[in-house]
Amino acid sequence: VVEEALKHREIKGVYGLVHGIEGALGEDLVDLTRASAAVLQGLRETPGSALGSCRHKLSEEDYARIVEVFRAHDVRYFVYIGGNDSMDTCHRIASLAEAENYEIRVMGAPKTIDNDLVRTDHCPGYGSAARFIALATMDAGRDLEAMCTFDKVTILETMGRNAGWLTAAAVLGKREPRDPPHLVYVPERPLDEQVFLKRVQEICEDLGYAFVVVCEGVRDPSGTFVVEAGAPMRTDAFGHRLVTLTSGTAHYLAGRVREELGLQARHVKPDTVQRSSSACASGTDREEAYRCGAAAVAHAVKGDVGAMVTLVREPGAKYRCSTGLAPLEEVANAQKKLPDAFINPEGDFVTDAFRAYALPLIGDPLPEYVRLDVPRVERRMGG
Amino acid sequence: VVEEALKHREIKGVYGLVHGIEGALGEDLVDLTRASAAVLQGLRETPGSALGSCRHKLSEEDYARIVEVFRAHDVRYFVYIGGNDSMDTCHRIASLAEAENYEIRVMGAPKTIDNDLVRTDHCPGYGSAARFIALATMDAGRDLEAMCTFDKVTILETMGRNAGWLTAAAVLGKREPRDPPHLVYVPERPLDEQVFLKRVQEICEDLGYAFVVVCEGVRDPSGTFVVEAGAPMRTDAFGHRLVTLTSGTAHYLAGRVREELGLQARHVKPDTVQRSSSACASGTDREEAYRCGAAAVAHAVKGDVGAMVTLVREPGAKYRCSTGLAPLEEVANAQKKLPDAFINPEGDFVTDAFRAYALPLIGDPLPEYVRLDVPRVERRMGG
Repeated sequence: VVEEALKHREIKGVYGLVHGIEGALGEDLVDLTRASAAVLQGLRETPGSALGSCRHKLSEEDYARIVEVFRAHDVRYFVYIGGNDSMDTCHRIASLAEAENYEIRVMGAPKTIDNDLVRTDHCPGYGSAARFIALATMDAGRDLEAMCTFDKVTILETMGRNAGWLTAAAVLGKREPRDPPHLVYVPERPLDEQVFLKRVQEICEDLGYAFVVVCEGVRDPSGTFVVEAGAPMRTDAFGHRLVTLTSGTAHYLAGRVREELGLQARHVKPDTVQRSSSACASGTDREEAYRCGAAAVAHAVKGDVGAMVTLVREPGAKYRCSTGLAPLEEVANAQKKLPDAFINPEGDFVTDAFRAYALPLIGDPLPEYVRLDVPRVERRMGG
Repeated sequence: VVEEALKHREIKGVYGLVHGIEGALGEDLVDLTRASAAVLQGLRETPGSALGSCRHKLSEEDYARIVEVFRAHDVRYFVYIGGNDSMDTCHRIASLAEAENYEIRVMGAPKTIDNDLVRTDHCPGYGSAARFIALATMDAGRDLEAMCTFDKVTILETMGRNAGWLTAAAVLGKREPRDPPHLVYVPERPLDEQVFLKRVQEICEDLGYAFVVVCEGVRDPSGTFVVEAGAPMRTDAFGHRLVTLTSGTAHYLAGRVREELGLQARHVKPDTVQRSSSACASGTDREEAYRCGAAAVAHAVKGDVGAMVTLVREPGAKYRCSTGLAPLEEVANAQKKLPDAFINPEGDFVTDAFRAYALPLIGDPLPEYVRLDVPRVERRMGG
């Protein structure tokens, strides 16, 4: 956004909102033209939002205040980066500015590891988090396989409020049936605890161990969050339930495996590391994130308004994406879930169609781990 | 081990024990000379023990059986890879073979992310796990900093039974006071809950957020595991308490922060990912691990017996390590804890002396993240 804005003579300054829309409310703006080229370059490799993020649910008064602040600083272009809540904020600001005859070109730039924005093929942030989950599954899976005379079950918990995109990414390194994961539970399908326990037992009998990946937001057949069986829930300012603040879905299910099946079970909760790991970042994702920000500015300068930049996958076998636009009103608050074609009929794994969709997004090929498939030495003793 | 063994004509075959010493008890041996060069090369990049690990506490009968199995297969060199329990196993087998006049050259090769073997500067495995923890702290720390209008405290839990080596590694990416971590709790010092809460509050008042790293095995001033306040404990076959099977120390402490300070707190539990992440592996660690295995074989061929290979840091500013030997009886069951010089007087952080010790072990330099330290835009509005 900054580098593209500096290319256009009609843009006289570039301000950043500190902690997103809270920075507008508090008139807390910074001068991004003062960032050195080295810092701007370094931001591409630095996790987290350098300007800060927020989870503030705006009131009607807030919106009026934001337009006043923009007017006071003669802000005529506004790019807001985020997921569907941010696009809702963005859309409301555009509407109010229009109603008040304040001329401003509002553009959204997509960014969410949840990958649940509609109208875009995928969202910047997803490819990198997906790569982390794919690698963590491959790695912790090999750990379990080595330890399976002792540990029998590992349950890895991924983020994902209502959509299983990130959870599904756990399969991207799987090449053969014994590879992890063996079960994948996404919020688009219910998790029936008895069926889950039966499947875990069957897989352990077959392979000697079972690796399960579960979304934090998975629900039981009655629609209740599985994690609610374990701990009380909290909600954020948007009224979303915050399952990550409890002990977690994986922790609860690992306890059930120990209690009901008598099998040693671990839970892995990478939490915010899954969305911030620079070592696991996808080069494709980095490049597309940069391109979306630049496109948001370029479109605004050309006169577009009230839209979010989208990523559009080109037809053909070789992966290529261009950018497009979608109206903010269509993107705001809508959620794209995993389509049925990406989930198996049993609701406990994802399909090859999902793999084909997600593999190009995670960047470099995943490592190829080996196994010691060498012959046994003939026995010479009894017993 | 395999590649070095194949260089020596006096060695006619190379067998692998499937799941460690359990493979000896069950006469479950594989022929490692049948592994292709590509597989042997691939093992260097593959997480987990390709032969499998175990946690079997050997009985007197077991030891006799192992020597019988070795005799039946004419095993004359034995390299066992692991931590202090494995070195104890190794030492007992060497003693029994000697008592029974069975000629076998038993060597230990060090390998433990706990880094708690005595007589060696450090242990293969540690540098890579330390790199993961250093990166996870840098990454999740930036996530917290961005989210600090909402999340206030992140508590990351590392492995470590009784020694804080891995926990301490969280500081290796810290360059200035606002960088994570802000508090580090190792098992060598008690964690007083009231003092902990006070420090978290002070840091939050100062910075707006606090990043805490805690060892799973940390205890309160009475000597009780902190995690015991949260969940019942289990023990393994060696009688070690298995804190990782409960909800965890970080989960418990995050709950206390929420309850007592009213601050939003998350816990991160990388669990087995911290010891298996190939993306975070240290090149130095990989090279030294290979060298320790080769040295174990080379020493055995030369006639050494009953010893563990050690890493010996050479004097001088530039990091270099050679290999040495230590008697198994001195290594078996002993634990090297963090020395006092590596822990601050308050017992809630580690010193520059620790950084100097650990930095060379984690391989390539850690990434240099940037911050947007740009000037504020002058306010034009009231309020």
